[in-house]
Amino acid sequence: MKKTEIKSTPRRRAAATPARAQAADDPTAIIVRMAEERVAIEGVDPEIDGGRFPAKAIVGRPFEVEVDVFGEGHDMVDAAILWRRVGEDGWTEAPLEATDNQRWAGTFTPLANAMHEYTVIGWRDVWGMWQSEVSKKQAAGVSITLELEEGVRLVAASAQAGERGTADDRIALTQLAAGMKAADDGTRFAVLTGEEAGALMRRAGHRANLTRYHRVLRLWVDRPAAAFSAWYELFPRSMSGDPHRHGTFDDVIARLPYVRGLGFDVLYFPPIHPIGLTNRKGKNNTLDAQPDDVGSPYAIGAAEGGHDALHPELGGFEAFKRLIDAAREQGLEIALDYALNCSPDHPWIKQHPDWFDWRPDGSIRYAENPPKKYEDIVNVRFYDGDKVIPEVWIAQRDVFLFWISHGVKIFRVDNPHTKAYAFWEWVIAEVQKQHPDVLFLSEAFTRPKVMHRLAKVGFSQSYSYFTWRTTKEELTEYMLELTRTEKRHTMRVNFFVNTPDINPVYLQTSGRAGHQVRLVLASSLAGNYGVYSGFELCEATPIPGREEYLNSEKYEIRAWDWDRPGNIRDDIARMNMLRQTHPALQEFANVEFYNMWNDNILFYGKRTEDKSSFLLFAVNLDPHNGQGADFEVPLWEFGLPDNASIEVEDLVQNYTFTWSGKYQH
Amino acid sequence: MKKTEIKSTPRRRAAATPARAQAADDPTAIIVRMAEERVAIEGVDPEIDGGRFPAKAIVGRPFEVEVDVFGEGHDMVDAAILWRRVGEDGWTEAPLEATDNQRWAGTFTPLANAMHEYTVIGWRDVWGMWQSEVSKKQAAGVSITLELEEGVRLVAASAQAGERGTADDRIALTQLAAGMKAADDGTRFAVLTGEEAGALMRRAGHRANLTRYHRVLRLWVDRPAAAFSAWYELFPRSMSGDPHRHGTFDDVIARLPYVRGLGFDVLYFPPIHPIGLTNRKGKNNTLDAQPDDVGSPYAIGAAEGGHDALHPELGGFEAFKRLIDAAREQGLEIALDYALNCSPDHPWIKQHPDWFDWRPDGSIRYAENPPKKYEDIVNVRFYDGDKVIPEVWIAQRDVFLFWISHGVKIFRVDNPHTKAYAFWEWVIAEVQKQHPDVLFLSEAFTRPKVMHRLAKVGFSQSYSYFTWRTTKEELTEYMLELTRTEKRHTMRVNFFVNTPDINPVYLQTSGRAGHQVRLVLASSLAGNYGVYSGFELCEATPIPGREEYLNSEKYEIRAWDWDRPGNIRDDIARMNMLRQTHPALQEFANVEFYNMWNDNILFYGKRTEDKSSFLLFAVNLDPHNGQGADFEVPLWEFGLPDNASIEVEDLVQNYTFTWSGKYQH
Repeated sequence: MKKTEIKSTPRRRAAATPARAQAADDPTAIIVRMAEERVAIEGVDPEIDGGRFPAKAIVGRPFEVEVDVFGEGHDMVDAAILWRRVGEDGWTEAPLEATDNQRWAGTFTPLANAMHEYTVIGWRDVWGMWQSEVSKKQAAGVSITLELEEGVRLVAASAQAGERGTADDRIALTQLAAGMKAADDGTRFAVLTGEEAGALMRRAGHRANLTRYHRVLRLWVDRPAAAFSAWYELFPRSMSGDPHRHGTFDDVIARLPYVRGLGFDVLYFPPIHPIGLTNRKGKNNTLDAQPDDVGSPYAIGAAEGGHDALHPELGGFEAFKRLIDAAREQGLEIALDYALNCSPDHPWIKQHPDWFDWRPDGSIRYAENPPKKYEDIVNVRFYDGDKVIPEVWIAQRDVFLFWISHGVKIFRVDNPHTKAYAFWEWVIAEVQKQHPDVLFLSEAFTRPKVMHRLAKVGFSQSYSYFTWRTTKEELTEYMLELTRTEKRHTMRVNFFVNTPDINPVYLQTSGRAGHQVRLVLASSLAGNYGVYSGFELCEATPIPGREEYLNSEKYEIRAWDWDRPGNIRDDIARMNMLRQTHPALQEFANVEFYNMWNDNILFYGKRTEDKSSFLLFAVNLDPHNGQGADFEVPLWEFGLPDNASIEVEDLVQNYTFTWSGKYQH
Repeated sequence: MKKTEIKSTPRRRAAATPARAQAADDPTAIIVRMAEERVAIEGVDPEIDGGRFPAKAIVGRPFEVEVDVFGEGHDMVDAAILWRRVGEDGWTEAPLEATDNQRWAGTFTPLANAMHEYTVIGWRDVWGMWQSEVSKKQAAGVSITLELEEGVRLVAASAQAGERGTADDRIALTQLAAGMKAADDGTRFAVLTGEEAGALMRRAGHRANLTRYHRVLRLWVDRPAAAFSAWYELFPRSMSGDPHRHGTFDDVIARLPYVRGLGFDVLYFPPIHPIGLTNRKGKNNTLDAQPDDVGSPYAIGAAEGGHDALHPELGGFEAFKRLIDAAREQGLEIALDYALNCSPDHPWIKQHPDWFDWRPDGSIRYAENPPKKYEDIVNVRFYDGDKVIPEVWIAQRDVFLFWISHGVKIFRVDNPHTKAYAFWEWVIAEVQKQHPDVLFLSEAFTRPKVMHRLAKVGFSQSYSYFTWRTTKEELTEYMLELTRTEKRHTMRVNFFVNTPDINPVYLQTSGRAGHQVRLVLASSLAGNYGVYSGFELCEATPIPGREEYLNSEKYEIRAWDWDRPGNIRDDIARMNMLRQTHPALQEFANVEFYNMWNDNILFYGKRTEDKSSFLLFAVNLDPHNGQGADFEVPLWEFGLPDNASIEVEDLVQNYTFTWSGKYQH
């Protein structure tokens, strides 16, 4: 990659010159400005909402840009990507190659966890046109003496301009121009239409009518965990092993080998802050809490403090630091819940009454979804009517910064869709400006455009509809929407198989086999996936008729037998190991669905660009019956004929065999 | 429609204030700016290339805008279009209605042939949310005293703000607020949740968190002929009726009743300028012109003058004026060819040698497409290498202005794709700034993206691939591409059935029936269509094996028997009459394809939005055999059940009958 200094174009300079204004009626100035766009550059992909939002990429992974570039008439053109980290001087250039029908594609690989920007340049390939013209005429037996002289002059002009290429290139150009000056036609033709001269002119020749795309686009580059992570969620207070004793951070430390043994790399906790007493919820979300009920951790804030305090029974900041450090040592990152809910006892209510909504009778407004009321929760307001309350935004930002200062780099954000999109756009940018490695998971289960908007304004990962997509048709359609539409540039899903809020009907009714099915789907289809503890034990007892867990840990302390018979810990460990060892499972959009003639079996492949890592999955979605089917081995992906043989390794049962021919059962 | 003064937002004001720069590190200023975008407004359609190009509309026809508008959480929102003619103060507002899945749609009807602009506003529908909340709670039997007081305060705040609605509305709001102040809960509920209060608040209430889309989009509004026109092309020099006598404008005047009798409204001539002598082409494009050969009219320029001169044998400017006036009297507009070709005898070559490309031996560069040479033509150059030549652009603009001053308002532009896109964007804007009623037809038969780009940079109409789309599948696919993709907002096709350059293979081999097929397709599928004279006589004699006419009028004077047996003049007149009398045929994107189980028959409907004009066409594409088929009567379009009866008029044979039931033969 070369660093290229692209001068600001006359268009930009002209616009900044006051003299321009006087010349508004002079068509010449307008012509000079408009004439700079001689090459058509359009249809840039990605370009999120016309450049309103950045696309997303990962440090060290190639980022692909596609674009239509074409000239007028029979003109040949060439094109390149310009990119840089925001704030850098000069641009780095990456080549674009013509693919089909005036479309071009190229990649660049950003190496910094930071905001980048990119655009496209195109130019008339005058040398290519000259080579084509002179070759055609020579083949047609027409005299080309004049054409050859024109070619010599093109080389001489490029040599004299000396704009591009290395010092050696420029010397070579000068020598070429000098050598051709007195050469005969035969020599001129042989040398100038040769590959060497072509390559030299491409590297160092003048770029005619260099045109720059009219927009610079942004690209946010995340660290790899944004796109590839395996999450495990647990309630720290349930980690004592005794339902009557509140778990502590040290209890969690004791569980770390278990979590790491399963192969996860992110350990995520629901809120760990003091819990309000006023209107505290009882077990199973009842309204009459008993004195020993622990309440919902989402009712944040009590006499002991609010969003920057720790629940006293979990242990203090020293214990928290021990946990962070121990987790890091074992290769686990701690993710915290960022829930802007306040209990009626939150210190902010007294400190900042103007941050809350008050009713005509002087009472505080509780959260509600009429006629439902959530009386253990009040919401901070971001606006007072039309007017924003900047202090609230800053305070919420400072909650992130506080926990970041305590070693947390990943936040799972509760219900972001009920707060202003503009707030997220601001706060994520604010935090990542100082801490680009911080990741934000959007916990919004709502309408598609809302979820997509949250991804666009900056969330690194997004919860998804995966839990409700269970049939072959639903899964295929959803995966194609996520990997084949514009969403692939902004929205990185995290396929949680269950959450404390979602005990999926499929899991309630499908037993151990169903848990295995969902595990394999989530961990192989998505780069990011997650499991809420208990899943590995196939725990799926619901409140009858609802998608909720019975005796949910949201409202009480539970104790679990982690060795419970029928658990699928081995399956989880195997899937996480496969994910670590097979690069094809570390990407998302690289899924391809293949034909298997049975609606109960989802058959798909995941592969790296170079196909050095290529995995096939045939997942029987029917948890109650074995299923068989005829299917097509995608031999064509390896350029093989339909009757070819291919060696295959079974990664579940660890043996190698051969498929001969495209059709198999 | 109301005129609304939308104040420039603080964001814009802030950006213009130098004090802002100092406050770059103050998060408050950034928050205040970003917080203005509380309502999400995205996915505006049309928005051509992110606003880079204007969309197109027609004076007096509704222009539809679609957009995603949504708030946070359960917020209800409302939205509207703002539009105006560029240069007007203030905006006109047009309502948007929610359609489906957070998508909104609305229309406005521009009335001026001029550049317009539009954008979208959205706001939180606080009153709607209040009505919904209080109604739900009342239905649930919950106390709503506080909610009612909050409603009264909302009315009072709107009354006090007095921002919107008529003077009467504001008085009504004040009275409502006053009346509710002391009312009891029952009265408050009845009045405030009533329709009248809702309508008043919608008209005059405060719009909370009014958010404006971040981009203002342009819309070029043409006169109706841009979208609905029937063209007839003829060579004036062939109008004498004698192949040995050069036709004149007066001969053309004598032909006007014939053309108008066929029902056309645009009469288009290939170039009418002096024709060069140097390297003049002979009959059938031969290189050895005889002394009496008239040459190609595209070799423009001779001793008698160039692009602003008339071919001396056609008659002078007085004759030309007679023709323009006579045509206008008969309801015909004259369209001229705008071909930037120069013959080697063009006066510009001596006057402005720097406008042309010269070769190392001092010779002028002829047009060529190696190894083919076009030695009767040299091209003006728009650029000297990288540098634009503004004088050339201005001179080319002045050619348009010259003919406009002589009464011409429509130009068919020859091969625009071989000149710079930027030139067309500039020159069309320049001309339409002074003469917004001037129309430009792009004669580019080249790659799809190039043709689309020319439409985007400003061409009013575009030639199309229609001549090469002959099968049911090809026609359906092409029509869907033109009417269902972004192209419908920028590219208005003109379906020519033939041209002097294109004698389609289908017409060469299909006889009279084939000509009728192509006539019906072109005139019913497209708003703009065209015929090159001879088509009505079913003249299709080719140069064997080529798509060219034998003895083409491009190179010689022809004489025709306009009453030749087997002509289809009556069919043409009938189709043009149907187009004039049925509004459904005056639009383009209103086509719908229906099921008819025969691949030889294309079955489609055209209808107005309100379905008051609804035409069905079943076109047998097979010119050699009669075809029959089962088909579906689109009863569902009228909301009728499958067994309903519907009265139908046969517009070809002029009788009325009834279809009973959806399936017919």
